[in-house]
Amino acid sequence: MTKNQTLRRALEDGKLFTAMAAHNPLSAKLAEEAGFGGIWGSGFELSASYAVPDANILSMGLHLEMMRAIASVVSIPLIADIDTGFGNAVNVNYIVRQYEEAGASAIVMEDKTFPKDTSLREAGRQDLVRIEEFQGKVASAVDARRDADLVVVARTEALIAGRGQAEAIERGLAYEEAGADAILIHSKQKTPDEVLDFIRAWPGRIPLVLVPTAYPQLTEPDIEALRKVGIVIYGNHAIRAAVGAMKDVFATIRRDRGIRQVDSYLPSVKEIIALQGDEHMRSIESRFLR
Amino acid sequence: MTKNQTLRRALEDGKLFTAMAAHNPLSAKLAEEAGFGGIWGSGFELSASYAVPDANILSMGLHLEMMRAIASVVSIPLIADIDTGFGNAVNVNYIVRQYEEAGASAIVMEDKTFPKDTSLREAGRQDLVRIEEFQGKVASAVDARRDADLVVVARTEALIAGRGQAEAIERGLAYEEAGADAILIHSKQKTPDEVLDFIRAWPGRIPLVLVPTAYPQLTEPDIEALRKVGIVIYGNHAIRAAVGAMKDVFATIRRDRGIRQVDSYLPSVKEIIALQGDEHMRSIESRFLR
Amino acid sequence: MTKNQTLRRALEDGKLFTAMAAHNPLSAKLAEEAGFGGIWGSGFELSASYAVPDANILSMGLHLEMMRAIASVVSIPLIADIDTGFGNAVNVNYIVRQYEEAGASAIVMEDKTFPKDTSLREAGRQDLVRIEEFQGKVASAVDARRDADLVVVARTEALIAGRGQAEAIERGLAYEEAGADAILIHSKQKTPDEVLDFIRAWPGRIPLVLVPTAYPQLTEPDIEALRKVGIVIYGNHAIRAAVGAMKDVFATIRRDRGIRQVDSYLPSVKEIIALQGDEHMRSIESRFLR
Amino acid sequence: MTKNQTLRRALEDGKLFTAMAAHNPLSAKLAEEAGFGGIWGSGFELSASYAVPDANILSMGLHLEMMRAIASVVSIPLIADIDTGFGNAVNVNYIVRQYEEAGASAIVMEDKTFPKDTSLREAGRQDLVRIEEFQGKVASAVDARRDADLVVVARTEALIAGRGQAEAIERGLAYEEAGADAILIHSKQKTPDEVLDFIRAWPGRIPLVLVPTAYPQLTEPDIEALRKVGIVIYGNHAIRAAVGAMKDVFATIRRDRGIRQVDSYLPSVKEIIALQGDEHMRSIESRFLR
Repeated sequence: MTKNQTLRRALEDGKLFTAMAAHNPLSAKLAEEAGFGGIWGSGFELSASYAVPDANILSMGLHLEMMRAIASVVSIPLIADIDTGFGNAVNVNYIVRQYEEAGASAIVMEDKTFPKDTSLREAGRQDLVRIEEFQGKVASAVDARRDADLVVVARTEALIAGRGQAEAIERGLAYEEAGADAILIHSKQKTPDEVLDFIRAWPGRIPLVLVPTAYPQLTEPDIEALRKVGIVIYGNHAIRAAVGAMKDVFATIRRDRGIRQVDSYLPSVKEIIALQGDEHMRSIESRFLR
Repeated sequence: MTKNQTLRRALEDGKLFTAMAAHNPLSAKLAEEAGFGGIWGSGFELSASYAVPDANILSMGLHLEMMRAIASVVSIPLIADIDTGFGNAVNVNYIVRQYEEAGASAIVMEDKTFPKDTSLREAGRQDLVRIEEFQGKVASAVDARRDADLVVVARTEALIAGRGQAEAIERGLAYEEAGADAILIHSKQKTPDEVLDFIRAWPGRIPLVLVPTAYPQLTEPDIEALRKVGIVIYGNHAIRAAVGAMKDVFATIRRDRGIRQVDSYLPSVKEIIALQGDEHMRSIESRFLR
Repeated sequence: MTKNQTLRRALEDGKLFTAMAAHNPLSAKLAEEAGFGGIWGSGFELSASYAVPDANILSMGLHLEMMRAIASVVSIPLIADIDTGFGNAVNVNYIVRQYEEAGASAIVMEDKTFPKDTSLREAGRQDLVRIEEFQGKVASAVDARRDADLVVVARTEALIAGRGQAEAIERGLAYEEAGADAILIHSKQKTPDEVLDFIRAWPGRIPLVLVPTAYPQLTEPDIEALRKVGIVIYGNHAIRAAVGAMKDVFATIRRDRGIRQVDSYLPSVKEIIALQGDEHMRSIESRFLR
Repeated sequence: MTKNQTLRRALEDGKLFTAMAAHNPLSAKLAEEAGFGGIWGSGFELSASYAVPDANILSMGLHLEMMRAIASVVSIPLIADIDTGFGNAVNVNYIVRQYEEAGASAIVMEDKTFPKDTSLREAGRQDLVRIEEFQGKVASAVDARRDADLVVVARTEALIAGRGQAEAIERGLAYEEAGADAILIHSKQKTPDEVLDFIRAWPGRIPLVLVPTAYPQLTEPDIEALRKVGIVIYGNHAIRAAVGAMKDVFATIRRDRGIRQVDSYLPSVKEIIALQGDEHMRSIESRFLR
């Protein structure tokens, strides 16, 4: 089974598929080793790792290349976050093909205007494009894929933008009609109520995708019980973990004026070298270095 | 004072300068906030973050672009790790100029053959180029810089390669003669004895640079007492901290089948957004979005 | 004098400055050798060289890197075509700084919506953003530059979009008020009448910039006589020359089933090697290869 | 048939396959339209287009990305010039996979030391690696490919390096034994005699590849008559054609102080727009822009 088939089957089987955000190949590899089903090729995490806002400040090319690097080191599906599609339906057509060739098994595209503002920022700019326009973008993404198993996820920011559940459902259904394979419904309410209401009311045939950053109390068993959600994405926990640890370790080193203490509890250099694929490299060396 | 001047003065003042490894702009920013004097633009960390061996598998261009991205978000000097210089003295001439333009305040070049193998790997390939050849590379780096304050550090792997102290000193002196501003002396012994012997014996006039990964017991006060070391580089603690934390957090999420618990102790999304320069962006918005 | 000062002075002196389009460093170098005053870092030519439409299909990062590569091999000013600024006034602020650091001495930004469509295409999409919005983008570009000599050119597509001279002038004046150093007025009429009418009517204090692709009959002496134009840009003649010649040479080789004939009239390999800076490289070799 | 199969079959059929050098996607597209069988992804042409020597000054990543861009716009096989493999047999293993994923149908690797010097430069540095070492690199390339139809061409510079025919044949046979699919034999003699002698003496079973830059009098019918050559590569005629034409056109514009005359004989902007795939873009627009 290809990675694309793995993800496609998971959506069809109705078993909850879990994806962890990654901002580089190493975080993706750790997520695979931890047992997540797939990788979320997060624009937010990549922007954060470059210390710039998640507002299309980074060039599309940088994100695309990171997706390629991630896909080359993991054997689980990669779900690429393509924000608003970096333009109109024409751009989407060109770009989706590039993401597919880079190794993405799914793309997630949102119905905001370009340039986007991060959904999680308080008082951010959250304008939506017209429904028909976004249908065209979804249809263009579907048209562009060469492998029919590539999953096209339409993400509606209707709740984020304060448009209410009726519009969120109208948009979800319109995107389903345009060919989307799943609908990502995003909310920044601090409880899952808004999202749960949407899920219960969702009349579509295609599965939903959740990103429970704002309402972490919702667990996978809770989500499975809803029977309408195909994928849960943990959208920023890799970078948050990394930041927390680096802050602690850096502060400790400055306080100690040395690394003796941190060295005692950090993963060893040897462990890092193993994660870099040292064994594979040694095997190449022994066979081909003459 | 420019960043280049800051580093140059630090070397002249004889006050120990500390640099922390970074593998992306975010880790660099956290290192600056923690109080390190500069950033180590580590080839090892970048390779690790891409989950490939530190053996010139990544393209030079990728490292160069990461240096540019790092330099653009920190106000402290960046010391760029250019491995063996990606070729001969001709390549070095072209490349040092590119690193200078990318914002590096120092380059560190080592006297191994291309492609390098990581110094920290057991049983790695550690061949050195001829002394005269490396002198040419150092002189070429010095010639290429446009700002005389750009610091050229020659790194000898003589101890790593098992060549002994006499050759290490011979090489250090030869590189000083060729124009190096400092000598990085590397050792993978598990105690600092080998490095301490070298330092005591070092007859050169230029300062030394240490990377105490293998002998973490050596503290900054210890190093200051030696009075010959200008810079201490902590070469891999950012990536090790990130790996340890991501492993823990990922395992916890899989065990809990949810993020409730990890969310309670991870840095908040709001903190990440602040690190992305949200305040700066809001200021641009308020002045120019009309 | 820096490159930025060269261009700034030219605008102040009132002497017509000429710029030739380039799609790679080699074409830029040839333009410098031919005697053009500067290089036009054309988005159209770059897109054409990648065989994709000039409609923001290429990633911004690719254009930025090409600007850096061009600036590194010429000693005349580079005028970078940044299309619509790749987003809103926030994106402009981040991006202009990157172009400045890449070596651009001027940026030209147009008042169309993103994604742009090429101005020269018949029946293209030519929507303009609101005047106030574009004033914010111009002001943001001005704010972002670190060197006050970096030239900010506002390009209005009012004539291209069929909005007429009155709006073109209104826009030009508004952009001047927002801080633009020059106004590029574009027209796709097959005679210069429309542009000449605009120039005569232009009441602003800042100079104009012309791109006479569609009306090639207008010569530099004609333009100088108008006394209001600071820069003339030849927007696509490098790529057109290259295409014409490659077509001819390729066809001849296929017809001849060999290269004997074309070899007799093509520039020699030796000439190409000289353009690559062979002399400079030999000088590095002789000084530093030991 | 895939592109890889097209090239593989051509080698097996014994019909001479022709490849034209390209330095960007546009030149590749023109070569396809002219009727060449494939594209030569030339390192020399790419370096020339960046106005830097063909001596591993450009980053490998830049060449790789150009190969990807070229492969995405042509439907004929791309033969990628990977110079010396950018390192040892380990690097080759990683890199060949990347070139395969970028769309190359063949890679050509030469037996010189890194960094290479261009073969065509007088008095260049032309050192060869040991035969066994290069066998390891060839075997590593063969091992790395996922599609068995990817063609691995070993290029020997034995004649260029003045080692004589006996060593050239010894090397060719050794590389064949290591798994190469074809041997590129290079010569910079101004007549084809040296190469013809090699061909007549060649005892191997795999076909040869010629690059008749230095001896342009050798035609395809001549080569076909030899019955041992599978591919003829025209290595630099795209860039030479482009340079010649740009020089002429630029000089004419400077002399005329205008573009009237050159505009009358250059390909039209409309023709360039057509080459950019305007028709394809219009079709996307009409289907998906709503």
